[in-house]
Amino acid sequence: MLNFSREKYLKVTGGALELREEIERVVDKVYEKGFKNIFLIGSGGAVATFYPFEFMINSTSTIPAYAEIAAEFVLQNHKQFSAESLVILSSLSGTTQETVAAAKYCKGIGATTIGLTGEYNKPLADTVDFPIVNFAENDFASDSNQLILYLLTFKLMNKNGDFPNFEAFAGQLEVLPEKLLDAKEQFEAKAEEFAVAFKDEPYHMVVGSGNTWGRAYSYAMCVLEEMQWIKTKSIHAAEFFHGTLELVEEGTSVILLKGEDETRPLMERVEQFAEKYTKKLTVLDTKDYELEGISEEFRKYLSSIVTSTLLQRLSVHLEDKRNHSLEIRRYYRTVAY
Amino acid sequence: MLNFSREKYLKVTGGALELREEIERVVDKVYEKGFKNIFLIGSGGAVATFYPFEFMINSTSTIPAYAEIAAEFVLQNHKQFSAESLVILSSLSGTTQETVAAAKYCKGIGATTIGLTGEYNKPLADTVDFPIVNFAENDFASDSNQLILYLLTFKLMNKNGDFPNFEAFAGQLEVLPEKLLDAKEQFEAKAEEFAVAFKDEPYHMVVGSGNTWGRAYSYAMCVLEEMQWIKTKSIHAAEFFHGTLELVEEGTSVILLKGEDETRPLMERVEQFAEKYTKKLTVLDTKDYELEGISEEFRKYLSSIVTSTLLQRLSVHLEDKRNHSLEIRRYYRTVAY
Repeated sequence: MLNFSREKYLKVTGGALELREEIERVVDKVYEKGFKNIFLIGSGGAVATFYPFEFMINSTSTIPAYAEIAAEFVLQNHKQFSAESLVILSSLSGTTQETVAAAKYCKGIGATTIGLTGEYNKPLADTVDFPIVNFAENDFASDSNQLILYLLTFKLMNKNGDFPNFEAFAGQLEVLPEKLLDAKEQFEAKAEEFAVAFKDEPYHMVVGSGNTWGRAYSYAMCVLEEMQWIKTKSIHAAEFFHGTLELVEEGTSVILLKGEDETRPLMERVEQFAEKYTKKLTVLDTKDYELEGISEEFRKYLSSIVTSTLLQRLSVHLEDKRNHSLEIRRYYRTVAY
Repeated sequence: MLNFSREKYLKVTGGALELREEIERVVDKVYEKGFKNIFLIGSGGAVATFYPFEFMINSTSTIPAYAEIAAEFVLQNHKQFSAESLVILSSLSGTTQETVAAAKYCKGIGATTIGLTGEYNKPLADTVDFPIVNFAENDFASDSNQLILYLLTFKLMNKNGDFPNFEAFAGQLEVLPEKLLDAKEQFEAKAEEFAVAFKDEPYHMVVGSGNTWGRAYSYAMCVLEEMQWIKTKSIHAAEFFHGTLELVEEGTSVILLKGEDETRPLMERVEQFAEKYTKKLTVLDTKDYELEGISEEFRKYLSSIVTSTLLQRLSVHLEDKRNHSLEIRRYYRTVAY
């Protein structure tokens, strides 16, 4: 695979999975104190990674879950938030201004705080009650974070009595990185084809639903816009028919992130529409990937990580074919604002 | 004002305000039965109109509020939703497929349902426990719905002990339509200027936060995309700096919907950035409008309706200068999908 190190990927994802024991200890401590709801707080890609988990918790568990944008959260005075809340924050660098400020705000109110981050001795790890640390390169951070969140949030739900099969689920996660590598391999040629065909495309619609909606939102914003300077519209499949559809013409690029959760029919409806009205339809369907060793009952939860692992390959090929490094920024951490 | 009837506007908004007594009766009945949370359910522009109210309820009241997209909601199996939920649905025509299906789903589970709609004897009004009906032309529907929602949700919060000044607030709403007319008049020249300057602009960023975020989302999707076939990106001010900012160049149109709630500093930050990096910055600031008779303490809640009332003028001038009727659709209710 282009610009890809299997070793690094397995090290990062393996590092995430090795945290299982520590994560379960944190969950035990959190339950000792007790909590009445979960706030998932981040900015940009980090909050987007929380959206699938907000969706899955609200679909699976009686614990109320709220994914919130850090900079807005500290201003809003959210009335469900209190010392009895459990907060999970995320910042790979551990220095994202707004997220660190949110961590301090939450601590100030007395809530229990867990921080997912790439390094100790950075503001996020130093602020929260429970830092959960796994070093990850930028391109693997999303997979690392998601693995940690599968362990953390599903264990939380399990202890709440909502997800009895946690043992089997966590056991199967052990094989997931190898299966995600297989998926990447299988997708590689298609990723390259996409990049060749669409390298000069000025605009993409990116559509998701359920636990792929967060991936659609972040791929559009954090990769296509931020790293490739290409215009996008991310749109939820259930909202697609209430406005954005009118822009679709024969030459409009529409990218569908089709997962396997309850909302799959929403994506099928958009797909049927797009097949008729554009010649530039790209479908990433998690169902096309075998994921040997993963039970049918767990597949739906994994749509978000399968999607992001595939999208990571798209990014590498876009970088290559467009000759536009994923690292350059006009503004972010380049100028002050 | 171009293509505008004061009489019709005052009739529609007056019709909404005349519902106050009926709305308070509904609130009493809803409290008799009891409820533990509020679900605000719609599609497209209707769910977008709920977003500000979700934000305001969660900032003001201990009643948990969830705004949900109808078509996803019926598939998700949301665990906070139960027979003890209060549901507010909205569809102007009363026929929006997904919203009517959601109403039936909610009834099936035994939740209390309120439906905001433009007509009796249509599926939405026929399905819900409490139809609240006010006829509105499409271009005034958003103001009508918001007035009804100010009365309904603030009365619900008042009865919960969270908003003691409801009487004063509801009293002041009586003068609001006249003040919104003044605001429209004051904005008229600016709206026309915008349409002249931007009639051929192929892409706009539309930015909001707090209770203007829903307006940004829906103006981008339901007007610029659906009714004018112009590409957009709606982006929350707190997320702007995590990706979308990288697209900003000297010639990028950025439209800011600046309100007066707690999140105003987020908009100011985007404004300061945009002032530096684009020559095509448009700021709609609710603070520029006097709204005589409205107390300072209530102004922040009204940012969403002030914003939408101004945006309605933008639409009319875009229609005119672009010679593109707000009524034509390529697909919506034109082809089957």
